[in-house]
Order: sequence, then C-alpha cells, then structure tokens
Amino acid sequence: MSNKLKVVVTRDLGPDVMPLLLNNKELDVVVWPHNSVCDRKWLLENAAGASGILVMLSEKLDAELFDAAGPSLRVVSTMSVGYEHADLKELSSRGIRFGYTPDVLTDAVADLSIMLALMAGRNTKETLDIWPNFVWSPYVWCGPQLSATPTSPKRTAGFIGFGRIAQATLARLIPFGFQHCLYTANPATAPDHAADAALAAKYGVRELRRVPLDELARESDVVFVLAPGGAATYHIVDEKFLRGMKKSAVLVNTARGTLVDSDALAKALHEGWLYGAGIDVVEGEPKVGADHPLVKAPRCVVLPHIGSATTDTRIGMATLAANNLLGGLFGKEMPAELNTSR
Amino acid sequence: MSNKLKVVVTRDLGPDVMPLLLNNKELDVVVWPHNSVCDRKWLLENAAGASGILVMLSEKLDAELFDAAGPSLRVVSTMSVGYEHADLKELSSRGIRFGYTPDVLTDAVADLSIMLALMAGRNTKETLDIWPNFVWSPYVWCGPQLSATPTSPKRTAGFIGFGRIAQATLARLIPFGFQHCLYTANPATAPDHAADAALAAKYGVRELRRVPLDELARESDVVFVLAPGGAATYHIVDEKFLRGMKKSAVLVNTARGTLVDSDALAKALHEGWLYGAGIDVVEGEPKVGADHPLVKAPRCVVLPHIGSATTDTRIGMATLAANNLLGGLFGKEMPAELNTSR
Repeated sequence: MSNKLKVVVTRDLGPDVMPLLLNNKELDVVVWPHNSVCDRKWLLENAAGASGILVMLSEKLDAELFDAAGPSLRVVSTMSVGYEHADLKELSSRGIRFGYTPDVLTDAVADLSIMLALMAGRNTKETLDIWPNFVWSPYVWCGPQLSATPTSPKRTAGFIGFGRIAQATLARLIPFGFQHCLYTANPATAPDHAADAALAAKYGVRELRRVPLDELARESDVVFVLAPGGAATYHIVDEKFLRGMKKSAVLVNTARGTLVDSDALAKALHEGWLYGAGIDVVEGEPKVGADHPLVKAPRCVVLPHIGSATTDTRIGMATLAANNLLGGLFGKEMPAELNTSR
Repeated sequence: MSNKLKVVVTRDLGPDVMPLLLNNKELDVVVWPHNSVCDRKWLLENAAGASGILVMLSEKLDAELFDAAGPSLRVVSTMSVGYEHADLKELSSRGIRFGYTPDVLTDAVADLSIMLALMAGRNTKETLDIWPNFVWSPYVWCGPQLSATPTSPKRTAGFIGFGRIAQATLARLIPFGFQHCLYTANPATAPDHAADAALAAKYGVRELRRVPLDELARESDVVFVLAPGGAATYHIVDEKFLRGMKKSAVLVNTARGTLVDSDALAKALHEGWLYGAGIDVVEGEPKVGADHPLVKAPRCVVLPHIGSATTDTRIGMATLAANNLLGGLFGKEMPAELNTSR
C-alpha cells in the first residue's frame, strides 16, 4: 500500500490544470480515462479508499458514493457553481468538506444571457443561414428591440434570482437603456430596501426593487431566470407566469432547466403570450432532441448548456476545483468551500 | 389631369406610416402593389411625371430613373442610412433633393453588432439545437470570452469606421470590460486628438485612438466593420488584414458586404487565423445560398441583413423617409437631407 492520498477525478481537466494534481508527489491520482460522462460503476469501484473526489455536475454525490469511498474521504470538489447533484446533509453529517466554483463563471454566463436576450428578440433561430429563402419587406423579421427607442423609451429588466450573475447581467444592460430593474428572491428572506438602494446607486438605475412574481412578469421587457435549481424553484416560470408577461417580452434561462415548465413555454411561444425565448438549460438535458417542444417552438433559441463555456472560464473553474480538492485534502483553506450545515 | 403631386413608393410602408402619405389630399400616391422587390420596369413606367419617389436600398437611383420621372421630380427619399444605390452627382446636377434615414437605426444595429460579437465567440452556429448530438467535456464549445477575465484582463475593440453606430457599439462594450478602443477613419480626413480625448472621456475608456489598419488588426479582440460601402472601402478587410488579426479575435460586419473579402474570410476561418465571424451583410446579397463559402465556414454566423430589423426602428425609418419626401415635395425642411454636392 502506498502512503499517498488517493484522489479520483471524473474528467480529464486538460494540460493547464491536471499538473496541479499529477505533479503532486503526495497524491495517487485516478482519472476517468474516456471522453464521456464518467461511468457510475467505475466511479463507485475506484472511489474505494479515496481521500478526495473531483466531479462534474453529471456525477451524483450521495450516500452510496460516500459509502463506496469509505471513511478515508475528506473532500469532494465539484467543477460547477450549482450543487443540486450533491446531498449536502450526507456531506455535513459525515464531515466531508465540499468545494464548488462560484464567481469564476459569472461573466461568461452574463455574456451568454445578454446574447440570448438579443437572439430571442431578433429572430435569430429563423434567420440564421436563411438567405436567400425569404422575401425582404420593410417589416420582415422585425421584433422587439432590446435597446430603448424614441417611441418606447422605458426598459425594465426582470430577474428571477438576483445574485452575482444577475447583477453582472444588469450591468451589461445599462447602455442598452435599461433604467428599471425588478427582481424576485427567496420568500424566506426579508426584503432589504437599503441594499436595494445601494445597488441602484452602484448600477446607476432609476428603479431597483424586489417585487412579487406576477408584477415581475407584467412589467419586464426581458425576464432572466438566474435562481438556483431544486425543489424551491421548480417550474417557477409556469403557465400563469408566462400568461402574465408582455407580448413583446423575451425570456432567458441560463440557470437550470427545472425552473421553467417547457411545455408551458412552448405553448406560450406558439400562441404569442411572449415574443421569444433564449434557453441554455432544459429540464431533462441532455435528452433534448429535434422533437423537443422547445426546439420546435418559434423564436426559441436552444443552446446546449454552454453558459460557462469559454476557455478562460472553464480553466478557471477547473483550477478552482483542483485547488478546492487540494485544500480539503491537506486540511487547509479551500478557496471556495460550501458550508453544508446551513 | 389632376393637379395633385404624384409620388411613387416602392414598398408598402405599413399601417403606421402609409397614412402620412395616403391621407394627404395634395398627393396622388402610387405604391408597388406586391410583397417583393419593386420591379424596375414598373418603377420606370410609373415614375413618369412623379414629383417624389420613395425607395428602398434595392432600387437603383440613376439617370435612367430620373429621366423616366422627368423634370417634375423634386425629391427622392430612401428608407436606408446607406446611399450607395444613388448617383449623387446626377441628383445634385439636376437639383433633386435627397433624403435618407440616419440615426434612427443606430441602436438597432449596435444591438445586433454586440449579438454577433458574442455569437461568433460562443460557437452559436455549431451549438444551436445540437443537443444531444455531442459529447460534453470540460472544454467542448469553448472559445474566447467577450468579457475580460482574471487571466486576460485587457479587452480592445477595433472599429473600421467610427461613426454613430460604432460609438453606440462601444458604449455597450464598456460593462464587458473593454477599456481600449482603436479605430480607422477615411485617410482623407485629418486626425483629431482633441476629439479622441473627448470621446475617451465620454465613454470612460483608458485609450481611444485612430490607428493604421495593420495596428487595428493586430491589437483588437473584436473588429467591428462599420464604415460606409463603396469603392473607397472595397475589401478593406482582405487576406492581409485577416492574417494580421489575433487568433482569438472575432470579426463583425454589420455595415456593407463589399468591405470584406468573403473568400479570404472563409479561408481565414477554415485555417484559424481568427476565431470566428458574425456577418449581417454579404457581397452579392441576397444571393447567399447554402453553398456560399461563408455559410459553409466554421464559426461564421450569417444573418440576412437584419441590422435595423426591429419593429420600432423600421417604423422610425419609414416615418422619416415619408417625412423627408413630404419636406422635399413642399419645399420645406427635410428632417434628414443629404448634401449631394459635397
């Protein structure tokens, strides 16, 4: 038996990041050797005796896995900002430290949120590579304009969830003429008018307010879904919400597919309750084939969960995940540790 | 013979705008009756005796048309900001006033320019509706990030042409972390350092400079082509320019197709001289079929000239074109008259 610490990594993290682990002489690193989602059976077998496990969003982090690793397991590190795949109670009760990758992907996801808001309003799905198979006319492919216009000078952004990514998205919207910002938050938390006033001043908007969901739907020109997944936010965008939206508004979801009722959104787009949608996440992904109701819906742009997919950001996430693992293994500070006992 | 003034309009401008002309009892309005590009023969026949003609970018404004109209012709109004379809010398020498539609489309085109810059870097062409036909991995679909990142904090925007639309595009880039702005201008004009300093202060960027074309190519993370078309800018983005760009940069053309050598750009994308391109205009449009080199090129997003295609903006353009026509017909001020004698 080696006296090295065994770590299991469920995907090759590339030449910029793997040396952080492979070059550490105190570690015995086992890496899933294929370019595919890590096989569960392989993971359970290889976890035996591991002190640390580094996973992707695709790996379920539950009692079965922790049992398979055994009492040696000190730390689990996920290369994701979301942790709906992790059983936090089990991690907490077993004293296993848990790392994730917030912040580093904020700008990449905010960029994609702006892109999808534009694409949803500008008929991109319908117009991409369509030349010359349409007849030009003064109003063909015309939809709502993201920027304020002389005849429609007020723009309101609505955020379901108002964390880091939402605020980075708001910052990008200011030069488009957005001066009004509404958001919803976890009903369990208390309103904080002073914090709202401070944020309004920071971003230079005239209005920034926490509102009920129906007011957000009614008043927003763009609704960004940017809350965590899980039971508390399941289908928060449902038929009632969508029926309450402006006909000229667009919906953007770059958070988790579970927050939006796909069938209701498809119906809404077919019937024109709202103008368009930009969707980077879908419930049941990656099983989103050509016959999926959102892929078939008009003015619905569907991307394959690439919110954080830029080279710099993914290297940043992988580096942070590796450093979280190392911190947990050696009893040191983890750069981004989640408090699992809350 | 009626003593009304005859005006010919080459496309139906819709219920928000046509009443401006149709309800004017001093006018005899003839409108091309089909939802297609106005037939040249029809236009020449119907122009006879016209006092005013309102056209789209698709209609050639030349001596033949002005001869067909005859000496009654006082004003030509185009629903476009570009006027490369107009023989300005003929208009000037005949004393025919000429109106166009600047400013009203600035924000719509700036919005689309940002959208294309994002799409070109984020592999949108390759990822749209691709689910589930790819294998997820930590770096799949990763490209350059438009926003600044901790490991790559400097962002430079390059503008070929630095008029209203370019400046509106720059304003939108600021929250993405762009602090450096380079531009090229018509070589016949003198540099104006004081004006550059004023613009740098206005937009809050650290650097704003007019530079030679090769420096613009070399230093920019995104190059926006936003100069007028015509002989002076023909293929200004050629093989030499593209070879000089950063491999991680993207090119956006929302101006005119003639500024970019399509074959050179296709070659550049296939060989990786730059990362991607977002193209709303193509030389020879609308004849841009599935076998066009840019449609087939990797990471090249091709849209069908929809820069100004939002409902508010097109109504604004059509209204301005109608008001230009009315001003010219009745010897009054035209809201946007071009000085054709310059």
